[in-house]
Amino acid sequence: MKLATINDGSADGRLVVVARDLEHVAVADGIARTLQEALECWDDVLTPLGEVYDRLNAGTASKTVASSGVRFMAPLPRAWQWLDGSAFPQHGILMAKAFDRPPIESEWPLMYQGMSHLFHGPADDVAFVAEGDGIDFEGEFGVITGSVSMGASRAEAAAAIRLVMQINDWSLRHYAPLEMKTGFGWILAKPACGLAPIALTPDELGSAWQSQRVVATLHVERNGERFGAVPATEMELGFDELIAHAARTRPLCAGTLVGSGTVSNSRYRDVGSCCITERRAIEMIDHAGVASTPFLKFGERVRMLALGEGSELPLFGVLDQRVTGLSS
Amino acid sequence: MKLATINDGSADGRLVVVARDLEHVAVADGIARTLQEALECWDDVLTPLGEVYDRLNAGTASKTVASSGVRFMAPLPRAWQWLDGSAFPQHGILMAKAFDRPPIESEWPLMYQGMSHLFHGPADDVAFVAEGDGIDFEGEFGVITGSVSMGASRAEAAAAIRLVMQINDWSLRHYAPLEMKTGFGWILAKPACGLAPIALTPDELGSAWQSQRVVATLHVERNGERFGAVPATEMELGFDELIAHAARTRPLCAGTLVGSGTVSNSRYRDVGSCCITERRAIEMIDHAGVASTPFLKFGERVRMLALGEGSELPLFGVLDQRVTGLSS
Repeated sequence: MKLATINDGSADGRLVVVARDLEHVAVADGIARTLQEALECWDDVLTPLGEVYDRLNAGTASKTVASSGVRFMAPLPRAWQWLDGSAFPQHGILMAKAFDRPPIESEWPLMYQGMSHLFHGPADDVAFVAEGDGIDFEGEFGVITGSVSMGASRAEAAAAIRLVMQINDWSLRHYAPLEMKTGFGWILAKPACGLAPIALTPDELGSAWQSQRVVATLHVERNGERFGAVPATEMELGFDELIAHAARTRPLCAGTLVGSGTVSNSRYRDVGSCCITERRAIEMIDHAGVASTPFLKFGERVRMLALGEGSELPLFGVLDQRVTGLSS
Repeated sequence: MKLATINDGSADGRLVVVARDLEHVAVADGIARTLQEALECWDDVLTPLGEVYDRLNAGTASKTVASSGVRFMAPLPRAWQWLDGSAFPQHGILMAKAFDRPPIESEWPLMYQGMSHLFHGPADDVAFVAEGDGIDFEGEFGVITGSVSMGASRAEAAAAIRLVMQINDWSLRHYAPLEMKTGFGWILAKPACGLAPIALTPDELGSAWQSQRVVATLHVERNGERFGAVPATEMELGFDELIAHAARTRPLCAGTLVGSGTVSNSRYRDVGSCCITERRAIEMIDHAGVASTPFLKFGERVRMLALGEGSELPLFGVLDQRVTGLSS
């Protein structure tokens, strides 16, 4: 099943079911007003939402609207919790090598808590304070959980995966290493993320969902030029492991978003990268410490979409955002 | 004005106004159902809530209930964002000295984002996974903000302070240094906080609110024995500075909780500490690296209250919680 949220002027927007071909949507009338509400009573809404989905795909649903005529918000325009992992080791290997520092040692998955009271919609302009802050994107995948008990097992974590999403974890590289040094994690370096419009139940991903991972190629364009087409085949930990880690000493509420960290692949010379800082790291390794690819300036666009094997339909729709300054 | 939230079975509870002497409460009928709702339309609700407060104090309010007859939740039982600073330098000095490491270097305030989808109520049992995790408390103060724009000035930050609160930032010390080393901040080390029952508008604090700081003594008892009675007179940064830091690259939503970090005082030998790990650090400094005060075991109680100068009335009510294991 495919779900999304359309802008109705409220903070949480309005839940819609999206047809398999992404062409039409239908409001989930009488089932749940918002995605958060649906997540809080998932077992009750799954069947009625599935029936709307079936009618949409059969062309027999009532009150459908063309997707081109609605404005999508993030599937979850805000969430109570956003926990982002770093589960593609190749990214960390490149960063450590470029900056000549030892790899991060941890007996557990790497994970930070980021701001979650606002996720930008897939076509929203994204405002930043200053071009000098090292504006960067990070293409990644994430899952939305149901309620997870403190101390949940990996199997319980897997069973709590409700929906799968695609994320741009906007990052400010000027602050990242300075905040890391304090050990407190990132506040300045991690403003609001952008989310692709469509959230999918894992079954909807078909062969692109394997071992609690998204196995798809993340296509990233900067101003219309290919930046990366990176197969997400090297995720070291599944989302079940990331969720179980997050829940080791805390419960997770329904609607918690857990991220994979930026997608990265050891064939980076062929497939490119999903963030500028990784490409800059490769340049530094190759050119005696000198990076040439600049971070983003106001007015630049970043477009991301994920394709499963043998399909031309973006799994999560298209995330295409423009970087801007603060409006005065 | 004094506000609180009582348990009505819902996740966000029911907003009540609390009499100055803490003896009675009145439901904010027809004004705002929850504190979050009130924070989102603060300018509209401030006057009517103040009128209820005045009638409560004059003994002329209708539909009042004795405080002893209600169950208080955290004033905000959940929030979209919780950002905790570390603004009492003495704590960092002691920790660095005890563990023989350099002080944390940062040109900015230290701050991490913690879990905010659940804050324990003032008399709730608090469950943890394992006694071996180094269960500790951290007594501190915090403010709840209105909406703050990205890049807000310190003056704008000060103007956005809506309410002041008292917090127990429950911590698991086994995980803290290991997670700090990764630079990603704390997930395992920082489960849900507890909040004292009463949230105050800054004016209500009188002389206990100075230069955007709470100037009161935080009394901490462990199993009925004094652990600390620590004057919060050495907060290096005001809440205006902490808020402006938090908002440097992100907007803050109405209902963001910003914390001071554990209260600490350079006269620690006389006044004690507001967390076990600081007392253990002092023991390590005094006794060649050996700490003798144990972390908490299941069944222990921690009680915290704040007193302004010359007053016996706990400013924020009493936060008194029992540590337990997970119920099987």
